[in-house]
Parts: sequence; C-alpha cells; structure tokens
Amino acid sequence: MNTIEVCLTPKLFDEIITKGNYIVVMVDILRASTSICAAFANDVKAIIPVASLDEAREYKKKGYLVASERDGKVLDFADFGNSAFNFMTKDVVGTTIVYSTTNGTQAIDLAKHSKGLAIGAFTNLSALTTYLIHQNSNIVILCSGWKNKFNLEDTIFAGALIERLILDAHFKMDCDAAEASLDLWKMAKDNPLAYVEKAAHRHRLKKLNLDDVMEYTFINDSTHVVPILKDNILVDALK
Amino acid sequence: MNTIEVCLTPKLFDEIITKGNYIVVMVDILRASTSICAAFANDVKAIIPVASLDEAREYKKKGYLVASERDGKVLDFADFGNSAFNFMTKDVVGTTIVYSTTNGTQAIDLAKHSKGLAIGAFTNLSALTTYLIHQNSNIVILCSGWKNKFNLEDTIFAGALIERLILDAHFKMDCDAAEASLDLWKMAKDNPLAYVEKAAHRHRLKKLNLDDVMEYTFINDSTHVVPILKDNILVDALK
Repeated sequence: MNTIEVCLTPKLFDEIITKGNYIVVMVDILRASTSICAAFANDVKAIIPVASLDEAREYKKKGYLVASERDGKVLDFADFGNSAFNFMTKDVVGTTIVYSTTNGTQAIDLAKHSKGLAIGAFTNLSALTTYLIHQNSNIVILCSGWKNKFNLEDTIFAGALIERLILDAHFKMDCDAAEASLDLWKMAKDNPLAYVEKAAHRHRLKKLNLDDVMEYTFINDSTHVVPILKDNILVDALK
Repeated sequence: MNTIEVCLTPKLFDEIITKGNYIVVMVDILRASTSICAAFANDVKAIIPVASLDEAREYKKKGYLVASERDGKVLDFADFGNSAFNFMTKDVVGTTIVYSTTNGTQAIDLAKHSKGLAIGAFTNLSALTTYLIHQNSNIVILCSGWKNKFNLEDTIFAGALIERLILDAHFKMDCDAAEASLDLWKMAKDNPLAYVEKAAHRHRLKKLNLDDVMEYTFINDSTHVVPILKDNILVDALK
C-alpha cells in the first residue's frame, strides 16, 4: 500500500512523516505549476528551475530565455513572467527556459533530493494521475502556498489529486492534511473557480491585472504532459 | 475592523501576517485546552504551563501537583496526565497545578509574548466568544497540531470559533487558513465527533485507551470559563 501525505506549505516539509522513498508532487496552481504544464504542452524542450534571482540573472547573461517574477511582477532583466500564456507562444517552442518564481521554484528546490519530483496542476490532472499510478510509490503532495503560508488553491488541487489516486486500491491517505484537502476539494469541485474567489492570492493577482489566466487554470486536462525533475532540469516524462 | 487569522500549526506561528497587537487563542482540543477548561470549571485556582519536563520535575520537588504527559502517556513523576477527567476530582479544587503536554503547553510558550492569550475548546466556546468580542482586538487562532503537523480537531474548532465571531460585524477573516477552517467546520458541525473519527490523533488515543474523553470533548459549553495567561500563569478571566 502506498501512502499519500500532504504538506500544506514548504515550511512544513521537514515534518513529513512518510518513511523511506517518496515522489513529491509540487503544486503552485497560481501560477508556476500551471505555467510549467502549459510550456511543455507548447513543446518547450526543458525548464531549468532556479530558486535565486542571482542564478536567473547569470543564465540571462549566458543567453537563455528567462521567466522570472516576484510577488506577481515580472523582473526587469527577465524575458517574461509567470503567466501560462507567456509560455504559449511560438518563440518558446524547442527552447530551454530558465524559471524563477516567488513560491513554486523555491518548493522545487526544497524537494529536489526526493526520489522523484513531478509538477501537478488541474491542466495535467489525468496525465499526472496515470503517471503516479505507474510509479507505484509513496507520494508527498507539496503545496507551495504563499511565502510559507497555507493557500486554498494548492490545497484543493491536492484534494482533487487524492480523489483520483484513492480510486486505485494501492493508495491511501496518511495524514490529517490529506483528509482536509480532500474535504475542501469536495466543497470546491462543483465550481473551483468560484470557490477560489475567496483565496487571498486570487485578489493579489486581480490587483496586478494578472488574473486573465484564472479560467484556463481551473479547466482539467487541457494538457497531456507530466513535467518531472531529471538532473535538476524539468522535462516532460511523456516524451 | 478586527482580523481573524488561523495558524494551522505552531511551526507557522512566525508567518502570521496580522499587524500590530493581537490576542492568541491557543487550541489543543485533544486534549490540553479541553482539560484546562475542565480544571477551571472544577475550581482549580491556577495552572502553571511549562514547556519542558525539567521544569515540571522541579515544580514537583517543590510540592506542586503536576499534570504531565508526552505522546499521550502520563510521565512517571507526574500526579496525573492530560485527560479532562483528571481535572474533575475533589483533590484539585483550589490548587495550583503545573502542566506540561506534548503540544499544548509548547504552543502556549510560543505565544506567551502576545498582547493576550486565551484557551479555546468546544467546552467553553460561547464564553470564549463573548470574551473575545469584548476585547475588540485582532485575533490569531493558534492550532497546536501534533508535533508541528496539521490536525483536524484543532482546525474544525478554529472554524467553529470563526463562525461565531463573524456574526459580529467587527470581525473578518484575514487568511486562506481561516477560510479553510470555516469550511471544514461546516462539513463537521452536524456531528463533530463522527467527523474526527478520521483524525490521526483520535486513533493514537484509542490505541492508548485514552479516548474515554471524546464525547465530553465535543459537547459545546459544558463550562463557563475563559482561561487566560496572566504573568505566565493561567487563570480564569471570568473569576
């Protein structure tokens, strides 16, 4: 039997109880994990996630395309920011993009020494579920949150993924955070977009006029990709 | 307008966003906060919460009654453990009890420098709500969790308290964790005892034959007390 644990914010990652090896599913629904899936669906070749801005700047000097934001705002040296739509242009097809965001790439950095790391979003939910079932491993769903705080959008995604996984009798929830995530998802599932109206980050994005991506974010399975970390670079496991 | 924020585990206490002064409501439903309310309802004079076992041992040598447990088990030097029923005997009436538990007294220690600290349980929900409304202050509900992990029973209590407080137009929720707590409470409220059947700590207590207190724990308002911290000692604010 494989266990599923939910880590509600990166700050709680040290507290996970799952013993032995596990695959981490990194979740940053608004917006990094949704954007990463969009990129691979648009035939980006690879994504180099970097936690620090200094690293991102170094890569820019070497000629890489750099996507980078902090607190929702595109940084001056970056080619573009963190909207899924930024990754859906012809310009990025076949390229390797360097990527640094407020929360998502920090979470990837934290979990990079795990047995495996995959990126989860509503837009790749079915592809991710099938991939994880084939891996036959314990799973830790790592919600990126907002600056170490709990957020609703990542947590309801954790619930949505759990709902799918436990249909397979080889998976069971192993902590109260997983139970809570599933219950919150049950409240949200009829209309996730309406549910996250009360989420703090949704309002942050609205203030910055960055919420054009909201509708796209909460539509299941618009992509058939499973971004995974391989030698510290994200690639599509299905390619 | 006063804000209500929920801190889902002590490890996230540094991340609270509430500016300025706030009152902390410490919650450890299974079992410290429920037991503390039971003690004051049974005319205990004061409770000295201590985080470390060494401190508890020192007090024992000085002749104090000591209640102390770790992982649910009464410690050898202690007079009794952490069940509400331990605090409902004639022997404790009028006494000052030294108290140290796995999670609850650690949480009190963490929050002791706040403007105010009150103890919250289902058994004092109405008294606590009235007290907080009179304080007219920002509030941080600090869930003790289990060894820094999220737990269901403290979180649904946070939701129950929020549901009462926001009936007063001077209070509003100020973080996603508060929204989630309220939603989980909505799922649990018809039968909180049945809802926490799936909680990990409920099973821990069952294994240790310590779950006799479950039914008592989830009955609202069996006490009319509001334990608060005053000069590092808990006393009943209503006395």
